[in-house]
Amino acid sequence: MAVYCFRMVKVAVAGASGYAGGEIVRLLVAHPGVEIGALCAGSQAGQRVGSVHPHLAPVADRTFDETSADFLAGHEVVFLALPHGQSAALAGSLPDDVVVIDCGADFRLVDQVAWNSFYDTDFAGTWPYGMPELVTADGKQRGALEGARRVAVPGCYPTAVSLALAPAFAAGLVEFDDVVIVAASGTSGAGKSLKPHLLGAETMGSMSPYGVGGGHRHTPEIEQNLARAAGAKVSVSFTPTLAPMPRGILATCTARLKDDVTEGDVRAAYENAYGTEQFVQLLPEGVWPSTGAVLGSNNVQLQFAVDRHAGRLVVTSAVDNLTKGTAGAAVQCMNLALGLDECTGLPTVGVAP
Amino acid sequence: MAVYCFRMVKVAVAGASGYAGGEIVRLLVAHPGVEIGALCAGSQAGQRVGSVHPHLAPVADRTFDETSADFLAGHEVVFLALPHGQSAALAGSLPDDVVVIDCGADFRLVDQVAWNSFYDTDFAGTWPYGMPELVTADGKQRGALEGARRVAVPGCYPTAVSLALAPAFAAGLVEFDDVVIVAASGTSGAGKSLKPHLLGAETMGSMSPYGVGGGHRHTPEIEQNLARAAGAKVSVSFTPTLAPMPRGILATCTARLKDDVTEGDVRAAYENAYGTEQFVQLLPEGVWPSTGAVLGSNNVQLQFAVDRHAGRLVVTSAVDNLTKGTAGAAVQCMNLALGLDECTGLPTVGVAP
Amino acid sequence: MAVYCFRMVKVAVAGASGYAGGEIVRLLVAHPGVEIGALCAGSQAGQRVGSVHPHLAPVADRTFDETSADFLAGHEVVFLALPHGQSAALAGSLPDDVVVIDCGADFRLVDQVAWNSFYDTDFAGTWPYGMPELVTADGKQRGALEGARRVAVPGCYPTAVSLALAPAFAAGLVEFDDVVIVAASGTSGAGKSLKPHLLGAETMGSMSPYGVGGGHRHTPEIEQNLARAAGAKVSVSFTPTLAPMPRGILATCTARLKDDVTEGDVRAAYENAYGTEQFVQLLPEGVWPSTGAVLGSNNVQLQFAVDRHAGRLVVTSAVDNLTKGTAGAAVQCMNLALGLDECTGLPTVGVAP
Amino acid sequence: MAVYCFRMVKVAVAGASGYAGGEIVRLLVAHPGVEIGALCAGSQAGQRVGSVHPHLAPVADRTFDETSADFLAGHEVVFLALPHGQSAALAGSLPDDVVVIDCGADFRLVDQVAWNSFYDTDFAGTWPYGMPELVTADGKQRGALEGARRVAVPGCYPTAVSLALAPAFAAGLVEFDDVVIVAASGTSGAGKSLKPHLLGAETMGSMSPYGVGGGHRHTPEIEQNLARAAGAKVSVSFTPTLAPMPRGILATCTARLKDDVTEGDVRAAYENAYGTEQFVQLLPEGVWPSTGAVLGSNNVQLQFAVDRHAGRLVVTSAVDNLTKGTAGAAVQCMNLALGLDECTGLPTVGVAP
Repeated sequence: MAVYCFRMVKVAVAGASGYAGGEIVRLLVAHPGVEIGALCAGSQAGQRVGSVHPHLAPVADRTFDETSADFLAGHEVVFLALPHGQSAALAGSLPDDVVVIDCGADFRLVDQVAWNSFYDTDFAGTWPYGMPELVTADGKQRGALEGARRVAVPGCYPTAVSLALAPAFAAGLVEFDDVVIVAASGTSGAGKSLKPHLLGAETMGSMSPYGVGGGHRHTPEIEQNLARAAGAKVSVSFTPTLAPMPRGILATCTARLKDDVTEGDVRAAYENAYGTEQFVQLLPEGVWPSTGAVLGSNNVQLQFAVDRHAGRLVVTSAVDNLTKGTAGAAVQCMNLALGLDECTGLPTVGVAP
Repeated sequence: MAVYCFRMVKVAVAGASGYAGGEIVRLLVAHPGVEIGALCAGSQAGQRVGSVHPHLAPVADRTFDETSADFLAGHEVVFLALPHGQSAALAGSLPDDVVVIDCGADFRLVDQVAWNSFYDTDFAGTWPYGMPELVTADGKQRGALEGARRVAVPGCYPTAVSLALAPAFAAGLVEFDDVVIVAASGTSGAGKSLKPHLLGAETMGSMSPYGVGGGHRHTPEIEQNLARAAGAKVSVSFTPTLAPMPRGILATCTARLKDDVTEGDVRAAYENAYGTEQFVQLLPEGVWPSTGAVLGSNNVQLQFAVDRHAGRLVVTSAVDNLTKGTAGAAVQCMNLALGLDECTGLPTVGVAP
Repeated sequence: MAVYCFRMVKVAVAGASGYAGGEIVRLLVAHPGVEIGALCAGSQAGQRVGSVHPHLAPVADRTFDETSADFLAGHEVVFLALPHGQSAALAGSLPDDVVVIDCGADFRLVDQVAWNSFYDTDFAGTWPYGMPELVTADGKQRGALEGARRVAVPGCYPTAVSLALAPAFAAGLVEFDDVVIVAASGTSGAGKSLKPHLLGAETMGSMSPYGVGGGHRHTPEIEQNLARAAGAKVSVSFTPTLAPMPRGILATCTARLKDDVTEGDVRAAYENAYGTEQFVQLLPEGVWPSTGAVLGSNNVQLQFAVDRHAGRLVVTSAVDNLTKGTAGAAVQCMNLALGLDECTGLPTVGVAP
Repeated sequence: MAVYCFRMVKVAVAGASGYAGGEIVRLLVAHPGVEIGALCAGSQAGQRVGSVHPHLAPVADRTFDETSADFLAGHEVVFLALPHGQSAALAGSLPDDVVVIDCGADFRLVDQVAWNSFYDTDFAGTWPYGMPELVTADGKQRGALEGARRVAVPGCYPTAVSLALAPAFAAGLVEFDDVVIVAASGTSGAGKSLKPHLLGAETMGSMSPYGVGGGHRHTPEIEQNLARAAGAKVSVSFTPTLAPMPRGILATCTARLKDDVTEGDVRAAYENAYGTEQFVQLLPEGVWPSTGAVLGSNNVQLQFAVDRHAGRLVVTSAVDNLTKGTAGAAVQCMNLALGLDECTGLPTVGVAP
C-alpha cells in the first residue's frame, strides 16, 4: 500500500501564454501538491488558455488574467516567465514570504559588468541560482535553494553545458582557458517569436548557427557557472545553432585535458558528482545522449570521451530546453523551496520515440 | 491536504522492447499504483533496457527477460505487446484471474471471416474491446471493461476514427454506406521495423499513402465499431498515409449527412457522448485538432464541420498513436479492470510545442 | 554532339520576395533561354535578394526593386506572384503582347458567383488556365496555352487533385456528385505568413486540418476543373491539412465508382491521358506516390486503387506545391506561350532522399 | 542567342542503388553533355530503378545491372559509389584512359598508417583528391584534377570542414594544434543502412553525437587537408552529430587565433581564396549559413566570427552532404577531368524553403 499526502499549495504563473509559461503549467497540472491559481499573460490576457496552448486540456477553458500584482496576490508560489528585464518590477511587488521563481535572465548574473554588456535594462541583482545539481567549489548548489524564497532559474544552454562540464572543472581535470562549446537547440528555444527564420518552412530540414563569436547572452552565465566549479576564472567559446526540432538541446563541450588524466579519472569525477542525482544520468560506456530520449522529461543525459590525439575531453549532454532547461528546473526549485521531495510531479521518463 | 492511497499491483509487459511495449512501460513508471515486474522481449532478451529504450531512465539498468510463461508468472496484470498472432498461445498459459491486456489484433474482431481475410493465423476468439468511450447502440463500451480479466486493446487508427464517428452513427445523423476516411499516422505506427521506407532520410519531409483501396487491416475493426454504434452494417473507404512525424494520428472522417441535420444536432450528439469523458475533448467551434497538442497524452481532440454544399459531415480527430492509440488505452483498461479511477497515472496534457 | 540554341528572353518577377516568387526565380536561374530582369517586391523592396532568399546564390547580391509598372516595363515575360486581388491592376498596366503569368487566384475562376463567395475583391475576369495536362471534354488544356499572352496559374491543391481525378471523370468511370478529397500540404503552402501556428515549433511533429467543410478557396477551382473533365456539374468535399514538411502535397481523392468499372478500365484511362506527358507519372502497380520523390521537381506522381468493398475509386497524387503546384507550372506555361519545348529548364527529378 | 554544344559522354555508375549513387544519377540526368549508361547495383541488381529511387523519373523504368567489369566496360566515365574497401578491385579492371571517380574512402588518404587505424581493408593507394577549391600551400587543388583519369572524391564532413578552415590555415591566421570542430549531418549521411537508430521515428525530433573522441573515420582526412593548407602537421578534435533532417551538414570549426589577427585579415584571406569560386560563397557580414539554403545544390556557404574574448576564430559552413559533399563534387571533378566548364550541369541554387 502506497500512501501519498500533500499540502495543497496555490501557485500562479506570470507569462503563462509563452512557451516557458505553458510548460510550467503542463508540469503543474501533473503535480499532486499544487492548485493552479492565476494564469497571467500580456497581450493575450482575456483569451482562452486552450486557444493559445491547445495541449493543456485540463485548463483549456480558463482565461488568461492580466499580469499584475493584483492577480498574482494570494498565492504561495509565483512563477515569472517574462521577457528579460520585466521580472524585477513585478517581483518587487510580491511579499517576501512568497516563493518567487524567475525564469528570465534578470537575476542570474553576479557580475554587473557582464549584465550590462549583454542586456539593455538595469542590473536587478542576483538571486540563488536554480541548478541544484551544479557542482561548485563549495559543494552542490542545492543547499542555496532549500527553503529559498527567490530563485533565478538557469538558461537552457547553461543547463546543458554547465552540468556537462562542472564535474571536470571541480575535479581539476581540464584547463580553464581553452573551452569550446557548440550546442544545438530546438526552435522553441527562441520563444514564440513571429520571425521569418522561425517559420516551419524555414526551420524544417535546416540547421544554422547564430550568436557566433561570443555574442550569445548565455556565454557569461556559462562562464559564471564553470568558474564556480573551477574556483577560478573561465573563458569559453560558445556557438549555438538552431536545429530542426521543436525541443531539445544537444551540447558538445570540450576542454583541454590536463596531463595524465585517464578515462577512469573522468568517470569517477562524474559518478561522484551525479551518482545520487535523480535527474542526471551518466550513460554507460558507448551509449550517447539524444535529445529525443529526454523529450518532455526533467532528465539530463551525459556521456564523455577522452581524446588523447587532440588532447581534449569531450562531454556531450542532452536536455529538453523547455523542461529541465526551464520549467522543470523551476518546479524542481519550487519543490526544494517548499521542502517537498525534489522530484515531486516531475517526469523522469522522456516521450520517445 | 490531498491524500492518495494505492494498493501496489505487480505488472509484467511482454514485448517490452517494441514501441508499444516501451510506451506501456513509460506510462507504468508514472503510475502510482504499479510495481513494474518482468519486462520481457524476444530477440532482445538479455539486453539492457536503456540500450533499447534510452528514454526509460528509471528502468534503464534493468535487463529484458525472455518472453515465457515462467517470467510472466506471479503478476496481477500482464500486458501483451507482441506481433499479431502471438498473443493467443501466451495468453492461454496465464491463469484466468490475471488481468491480461493484449495490444495486438488477435482478439479484436468478432467476425472470423474478416479475420481470415486480413491475417494468416488462426482466429483466436474475441475479448472485451478496450475502448471505454465508444458509444454503441447498447451504451458506452466502458461497462464491458470494468472488472474484466481479458481486454483487447484497439488499433490506433480505429481509435481515432471510431471515436470521431460513433456519436454521429449512434444518433442516426449520417448514412451508413458512404463513409470515407483518410488518416495520417506518424512513423512509429509502423513499429520498429527495419525497412528502407521507414528510414529517417526517407520519411522526413515526405508523405505517402499505403494500404489503399481497403487493404489495411484496420478496416474491418473500424467497420465493426461503427456497426456497433449504428446498430447496422457499415462499410468504409479507408486510406492510411504515412506522415513525417514520429507520433500522432490525424483522421479526417466523412459520412453523408441525412437531410435536415443541423450543426446543433451534431454538436448535441457529441456533447452528449463525450461531455463527461476525461480524455475526449470536443473542441470549441473554430478550433481544430492537432496531433502536436495530444503528443504523449491519452487525449483525443475532436472537431466537426457540416458541409451542406457537399452534403457531408466531416469529423476530424487527433490522437497519439502510441498513447491513447495503444498504451494509454491499455493502462486505462487496466485501471477499469482493477477498479481504480480510470485516469490514474495517465497524462491529460500533451507535450507541446 | 548535342547543340542547344536559345533566343534569350528577358523576364521580370513581381512578388519575388515570397515563397512562390522565390521558386520562380530558382527555376529561371536554371532556364537556358532566360535573362533575369527586374525582381520586384513590396515591403522588402531595397533589400538584398540573398537576405530574403539565401538559397538563390547567383542573384543573391541583387536588390529587390519596387513593384511598379515602371520596373516591370521592358520585359518580354512578367510573372506575378502577388497576394490575391493585386494582380489585376498591375496586369492592366502591361502591354498586350507581354506574356503575363499570374500565380494568384485572380484570373482562375470562370464563375463570378463562386469568386464572390470566397474572395473580397472584385471579379477580375478569367484567363487561360495554366494546366497543360488537364483532360477536358474538349481535349487537353495545352491548346489554350500555346502562344497565350495571359495565363492564370492553378492553385497547388487544384493541381494535385485535378490531375488525379480528371481522367476518371473524362472517361465517365465515376459518379460526379460524391467526391471526397483529403489533402496534406507542406507549410510553405501557407506562404511566408508570420502566424503562430506556422512557427517551426508548432508545425514540426504535428498535423492539423483547416478550412474544413467547404471553406477552402480552392474548392470552386477544383470543381471547375472536374466539371470541365466531366462535362457536367461536380461537387466535392475537400479537406486540406497542414503537414510537418516544408513542401509537398499528397492528395487522396475518391469518387464513387460506376458499376462494372474494372482496374483495367481505370489504368487505360490514365495511360491514355498521361502516357505522353513528361511531368505526370502513373506509377507501376503497387508503387505509391510520395511527396519526397517529387521535391523540387515539376513532376506529378499518381497511383489508384479500385475499392470494390466500398464502391470507390481512390486516386492519390503527389506534387511539390511550390514547383509543379505553382512556379513550375508557371514556367511550363511560359515555355508554351513562347513556343519553346514545354520542358525547357524544368527539373524532372526530385531531390531525394 | 545562346548556343550550347556538348560532345555526349557515356557514363556508368557503380553502386547506383545507394544514396550517393542515386544522387550522382540525379545530377547526370540534368547534365547536358552526358548519356547515362550502365547503372549497376549489388543486391538490388535486377530491380527497377524507380522502385529504389522513386524520384529519378526519367530513368525509373530502367533496371539495375550487376556491378561487374563487363557492365562497366564501354564507358568514358565510371563513378564508383561503393562501400569502403570495394573500389580498388573494380577500378583495377578499368582501362587507364577511362575517367574513374571514386566516392568511397579508398583512395583519399596519403598516410597508410592513418588508413590502417580506421579501415580494415588493405591500403589501396592515393588518387588526386577531388576538392578543386581546396587552398593548399601549393595553390588550389584544381590543378591536380584537370584532365585526371582517377579522382578520389572527398568525404562529406571533410568537405564542409576543409573549405571552412583551409584559407585561415594557408594564411597563417591560426594555431595548428588547437582545432575543435563540431558538425551536424542529416541522416542520409549514414547511407541506406537498416539500423534502428536511423528509423524515422528515432531520428525525427532528436539529435545525438557519435564517433566522439576522435573515433570518426573522417578525422585523418580532415587533418590531411588542413596540413596541406598549413604546410605543417595539424591535429583536430572532431565531433560529428546526427541531426533530424534528411540532408545537409552544418560545421562549426574553431581554431586559436594568432595575436593581432583582425576581422579584416580573415575576410581578406577568404575573399582571396574564394572570390572567384562559383560554388563557395562567403556570406555578407551578419548572414549565417544554413543547410536549407544549399539543399540539393553544389554550393558551400561560409561565414566566420573573430571571438577576441575566447581567442578563437569560428568558421561555420553549410553544404548538402549528398551534393557538394559527394555527388556534386564527383560531377564537378568529371567536368574538370573531361575539360568541360567546371559548373556544367551542377545546381547553383538550393531548393528552399
